[in-house]
Amino acid sequence: MKRILSLTAVLMAALVWPLAAQQALGPGTGIVSPEINPDHSVTFRLHAPKAVSVRLTGDFLPPQRIEYEADGRKQVYEAPGAVDMREGRDGIWTYTSAPLKGELYSYSFMVDGKKWMDPSNIYQNRDIATWTNIFTISAEQGDAGWYYEVHDTPHGSLSHVWYDSPTLGKQRRLTVYTPAGYEDNPKAKYPVLYLLHGSGGDEDAWSDLGRTAQILDNLIAEGKAKPMIVVMPNGVYFNQAAPGAAVNMFQPTMNNSRSQSTIEIEDSFPDVMNFIEKHYHVAKGAANTAVAGLSMGGRQSVQLSMRYPKRFGYVGMFSGAAMPEGNEDAIAAVFAAQPKLWWIGVGKDDGVRVSSLALKDYCDAHGYPVTYYESDGGHIWRNWRVYLTIFAQKLFR
Amino acid sequence: MKRILSLTAVLMAALVWPLAAQQALGPGTGIVSPEINPDHSVTFRLHAPKAVSVRLTGDFLPPQRIEYEADGRKQVYEAPGAVDMREGRDGIWTYTSAPLKGELYSYSFMVDGKKWMDPSNIYQNRDIATWTNIFTISAEQGDAGWYYEVHDTPHGSLSHVWYDSPTLGKQRRLTVYTPAGYEDNPKAKYPVLYLLHGSGGDEDAWSDLGRTAQILDNLIAEGKAKPMIVVMPNGVYFNQAAPGAAVNMFQPTMNNSRSQSTIEIEDSFPDVMNFIEKHYHVAKGAANTAVAGLSMGGRQSVQLSMRYPKRFGYVGMFSGAAMPEGNEDAIAAVFAAQPKLWWIGVGKDDGVRVSSLALKDYCDAHGYPVTYYESDGGHIWRNWRVYLTIFAQKLFR
Repeated sequence: MKRILSLTAVLMAALVWPLAAQQALGPGTGIVSPEINPDHSVTFRLHAPKAVSVRLTGDFLPPQRIEYEADGRKQVYEAPGAVDMREGRDGIWTYTSAPLKGELYSYSFMVDGKKWMDPSNIYQNRDIATWTNIFTISAEQGDAGWYYEVHDTPHGSLSHVWYDSPTLGKQRRLTVYTPAGYEDNPKAKYPVLYLLHGSGGDEDAWSDLGRTAQILDNLIAEGKAKPMIVVMPNGVYFNQAAPGAAVNMFQPTMNNSRSQSTIEIEDSFPDVMNFIEKHYHVAKGAANTAVAGLSMGGRQSVQLSMRYPKRFGYVGMFSGAAMPEGNEDAIAAVFAAQPKLWWIGVGKDDGVRVSSLALKDYCDAHGYPVTYYESDGGHIWRNWRVYLTIFAQKLFR
Repeated sequence: MKRILSLTAVLMAALVWPLAAQQALGPGTGIVSPEINPDHSVTFRLHAPKAVSVRLTGDFLPPQRIEYEADGRKQVYEAPGAVDMREGRDGIWTYTSAPLKGELYSYSFMVDGKKWMDPSNIYQNRDIATWTNIFTISAEQGDAGWYYEVHDTPHGSLSHVWYDSPTLGKQRRLTVYTPAGYEDNPKAKYPVLYLLHGSGGDEDAWSDLGRTAQILDNLIAEGKAKPMIVVMPNGVYFNQAAPGAAVNMFQPTMNNSRSQSTIEIEDSFPDVMNFIEKHYHVAKGAANTAVAGLSMGGRQSVQLSMRYPKRFGYVGMFSGAAMPEGNEDAIAAVFAAQPKLWWIGVGKDDGVRVSSLALKDYCDAHGYPVTYYESDGGHIWRNWRVYLTIFAQKLFR
């Protein structure tokens, strides 16, 4: 017995990731953070006895409103709020939020001016080059946060796949969601949504930050969206893949976006579609093909629609900036092809709202049918997840 | 022009993830960390002007040797080393390592006793409930670090797939690597390696920490491994999926391992194999089927071999503890089926070395052919990546 006990003790010590032993506190040590309370307020805790100041920043706090003028109009940009945490005698700083609506939220601690990840919460997201902790609140079935959580429904697959792009002269990586049942129904043909990320993002952005698989799983299980394939390519022509899957351990930046080259992602997009239509059982044609994207990807979606007006029956521009000037003929060709849906979504406080409105106004003035959706908030993932949830329900009807 | 400029400025402000604006320093601000120098020494930098002490911990530093006695023998456990960093006048703490061999390394900063992630390095891995920053060094083609990096070779796909387990009464998630060319050769049949994680791990562990896709891509491209499917299931019977893909936002712990129940993962393993053999084009039979795992997964691999002696022609126990006592008949049945390879790998300083040796000695004494491989180091991912690299080359020959 003694032998077994001593071996067990050693195993426990050895099996734990060694660096963990050097953390004074961490998961499993008794600190719970974040703690979601019964009223959906949230308590955050951080052990930092030597700190002079600990602040909490998060997108659930009253935002910092930054006013500016653009396009002759006053605009407001909402940055996440920040609050002071209060230190207890045990060196644990705490803050309890107001009750929160169902959502996926991000936060960080600022300890004496420096960002700390919450050592008690392993859940975190990378957005371009910034990591933040996250948590979800699911207030009730069908609220926004509910769609981002995993429920006991049939689940689709999420695959990271490489394809060859002859146009760009390289292999590139993309992420594919196939709905539950796809593998068991090889003769079924599925429509495809091409879903594009923003500047500095990559082919992991929509699945990680956008919770695409969870949103689609839940919508399809409820019968609110048609089973569909969602293809999330890498929209930066000079990148092959997301950090970790690419040849170099590059540091992504906002500059990883549009090139100064004559080759843009739109030129190579048929390479993506050819790969998907060859390797997946796909219902082809505009009535079965959608393209949407956020920010840079929203502009790319509009430009793809203009470049290939007969390929996309559904187009979504989420917080995008695509000006009608200079594109009059292309836009006319888009609507001559009678798309089933041209959907523009933007936040009231988004800096690109003026551009979204300009495109909407232009289409309205010319009798081109567009659907315009304005939400609260700014240029943030919270809105893009909501837009995807809305947009996906309108597809392939 | 003015309109465009002001809009651009606003866009740049809005498009950056808002929390980033509150970091004093970070990616793109001029601090490079880690910096891999031409001689493969590595310089780490952290801006922390208010800190009294900044230390660096990492698995490339001279380890802290912890001696203990187990099984009547003196054993050594190697914890990652730690060194003091030195503060410059600019508030930037630095440390430069000795030249390092090609490898994937982990590190963290300890600022006044608290762990900080390196804000200049977005690359990080989660192991159970601990995040650490990582970097790779590729000294030359074919060294260990080289296999963990992405090279300009054909790439396989990595898919997160749900399957139904009637035995466990739930849907469960697994990760599947399919080699380059798999989709283009639907009539080809591929052998399968089932690859199992350790205590507290999940179906993402081997692909994230173990760099399975990169190792297999590189070995296959070099002709050193046969193209194969690698299936990485979740080895904890009461979990459905990894954090983020599971119903609850649970905090993984080392206790997420063996159950006290009578149902173990071995009972439900045919559910995994049935799913894979139904949905993938698989070469069946023991000559085309391997199972291997690390730590708990190593023990599970041996137990699967004993439970289903005719199903697995190749068995790998990486840093596992499976005692021969009480299993004499099962082991006899395993070797009566004449497996092609029974491979045991363990580190000289691993606490489970005594168990690995006990199994090896038992097999040797009974004339059962096993291959025993002993490396430096302990119960760490560095060894498991190496073992996979060695083991994969021996399969399906």
